[in-house]
Amino acid sequence: MHKIGIIAEYNPFHKGHAYMIDTIKSSYPDSAIIAVMSGDFTQRGEIAIYDKYYRAKKALEGGVDLVAMLPASCSLQSAQGFARAGISLLKELGCTHIAFGAEDDNLTVLKSLADTDIAKEDIAPFLKEGMSYPAAVERFYKSLGLDCSLAKSPNNTLAIEYLRAIRILKIDMTPILVKRCGAGYNSTDIDNPYPSAMAIRQALISGHITSEEGFVADTDLDEITLYSLKKALYDNSIRNIRGYHEYLENKLRKEADYTDVDSLITSVKSKDITYQAIKRHLCCILLGITQSESYPEYIRILGFTKKGQLCIRDIKGKTSLPVITTLAKAKSITSLTRTDDFAHEIYKDAYQRRNHTVLTPDYKRPPIIYDFSRSPFLD
Amino acid sequence: MHKIGIIAEYNPFHKGHAYMIDTIKSSYPDSAIIAVMSGDFTQRGEIAIYDKYYRAKKALEGGVDLVAMLPASCSLQSAQGFARAGISLLKELGCTHIAFGAEDDNLTVLKSLADTDIAKEDIAPFLKEGMSYPAAVERFYKSLGLDCSLAKSPNNTLAIEYLRAIRILKIDMTPILVKRCGAGYNSTDIDNPYPSAMAIRQALISGHITSEEGFVADTDLDEITLYSLKKALYDNSIRNIRGYHEYLENKLRKEADYTDVDSLITSVKSKDITYQAIKRHLCCILLGITQSESYPEYIRILGFTKKGQLCIRDIKGKTSLPVITTLAKAKSITSLTRTDDFAHEIYKDAYQRRNHTVLTPDYKRPPIIYDFSRSPFLD
Repeated sequence: MHKIGIIAEYNPFHKGHAYMIDTIKSSYPDSAIIAVMSGDFTQRGEIAIYDKYYRAKKALEGGVDLVAMLPASCSLQSAQGFARAGISLLKELGCTHIAFGAEDDNLTVLKSLADTDIAKEDIAPFLKEGMSYPAAVERFYKSLGLDCSLAKSPNNTLAIEYLRAIRILKIDMTPILVKRCGAGYNSTDIDNPYPSAMAIRQALISGHITSEEGFVADTDLDEITLYSLKKALYDNSIRNIRGYHEYLENKLRKEADYTDVDSLITSVKSKDITYQAIKRHLCCILLGITQSESYPEYIRILGFTKKGQLCIRDIKGKTSLPVITTLAKAKSITSLTRTDDFAHEIYKDAYQRRNHTVLTPDYKRPPIIYDFSRSPFLD
Repeated sequence: MHKIGIIAEYNPFHKGHAYMIDTIKSSYPDSAIIAVMSGDFTQRGEIAIYDKYYRAKKALEGGVDLVAMLPASCSLQSAQGFARAGISLLKELGCTHIAFGAEDDNLTVLKSLADTDIAKEDIAPFLKEGMSYPAAVERFYKSLGLDCSLAKSPNNTLAIEYLRAIRILKIDMTPILVKRCGAGYNSTDIDNPYPSAMAIRQALISGHITSEEGFVADTDLDEITLYSLKKALYDNSIRNIRGYHEYLENKLRKEADYTDVDSLITSVKSKDITYQAIKRHLCCILLGITQSESYPEYIRILGFTKKGQLCIRDIKGKTSLPVITTLAKAKSITSLTRTDDFAHEIYKDAYQRRNHTVLTPDYKRPPIIYDFSRSPFLD
């Protein structure tokens, strides 16, 4: 049985994700599909729209066999850090393959880009010319005669980073490229037959579509995000936070008089420091994430099918990481989960403020067990 | 000219305050009245309902000649710390007298209570019997044959602490006791001819009375207060915060699942740790106040009359503290005002969220100059 990994956010799980899983299953009918999924916070530097157990449930319904959580300190990284953390976790989960969606299906070109390391010095001249970081990278690729047009799309960028992580971390993992269908990553067109996750989030928040499940809007954190920023500037703790730049600190000190995060970032971003890099930095301030790079230190299982359960049994004894299926039982290793516990506190509070109902705390929740024979769910 | 000091919060300034000033003026017609007033945060552990410049303006209208600010780190203390900080600042301002309101006008009894020091050991046996802290103090006074009935009322308690501070700090200052009129400290009766500050705050917040001036409700800080508490528990920084008790920390860890601060404190308070002590502790967490006790390190002038201006001239050269009339000009000493700058950031944000208008930042504001001949105000 192939164990095919996917690094995902499922924020929320949508038709495009289901299509990708169906495509993999048609080529590898006996495979187990293992998803490493961001928990309460995503790589964009946002709080996830739905609770992670609900998102895991939807992924299981959509054909995933095992959902493990990517810790907040791992998901709140640049594409490179996110990819490396995700690939590491897939490896610990015993995956021999990694599947990813990309805007283009030219694996050869993506690989050639991934095989090229980019040192700071390589792109420094282009940055000096006034180019943005992505533009400088593209120009560098071009200077090597590589087909850099692919590097522009966000999913291609991630695909390149997955391939690069496999090479750098020397992991034996076969890539499976699935060409994405439907709306683009940042598309806001909800009427597309395959609307993007962003379009769904926006439609939910604006009330254009409804949901029986409670959700959290990213702006629900604005008040505490701006407070935590001011506090970090006040006590200088910002200097230890991931994503810190002196230049950015100075800009933030000058322009911290906003009551919404989006306006603040828009006024502060520059060619050198992108909107999302600042958003992640603010999230790291909010959560107190200080390390410069994070790799998973434990495997937290959010849900599984019968096949997924076999995968869990299979990795026990093989992985060096502790496997956490229920937080309440993982007392001896909870120091590892501290940042995620705190992220969950923030999630719970935001959820309660918006939905006026209390979200079951993580430590009381067992993994979602998805039984195909007794569909829909036992949880 | 007598310089008569008052330690106040004026949260907000009301008829009872005006009555007290009129009473003093009728006995000391040539005096200058100097008020040391809490800034953005009060001794109850609350954000002040009105901006401090507006409160200073109202005090000047009410007959005060000079308003100096009690820094947040000074106002957020127990009655004892608050009194000592206030008395120290009045001394630096050249006051020879201190006037205070009290529920009773028996200065002799208040003095006898103030002359009695209370050591921890003195009240420990009563606390062990299960008494609350105030009850244990009362019992201790009783055991010495003192008339302790007076110690119960909040303004009497403060009066005793002022008298005690004068003795302990060896300051030559004559007390003037003015019997309070009107509703009690915690009265919520807005229809009383002299409604209490609390009654006015509640009436404003509930919309029972209106105000042309923007205001801030204490609950406007709930979201950031609860976030800062969780953060302090998460990174253990709570252990360095003023008002810390291990016992309280453990209780807060167990019961931190509230979305309003009042419910949290109500569930956590005990005989040993009162509601207000916890509220102040939460404020200290919010503002990052770590010292165990604070005395004023500068004299910040919020407003004055012509007479008040003479008082300022008079103290220059006599006080060892820097006198700040305009923050923008006080660059060399602004490191002293850091906690107050941060408190003001929080004030401004809360104000903007509630009133949808931007409050002029402190550093742009000159003191209020109240000119009797050209009433009402030049500011």
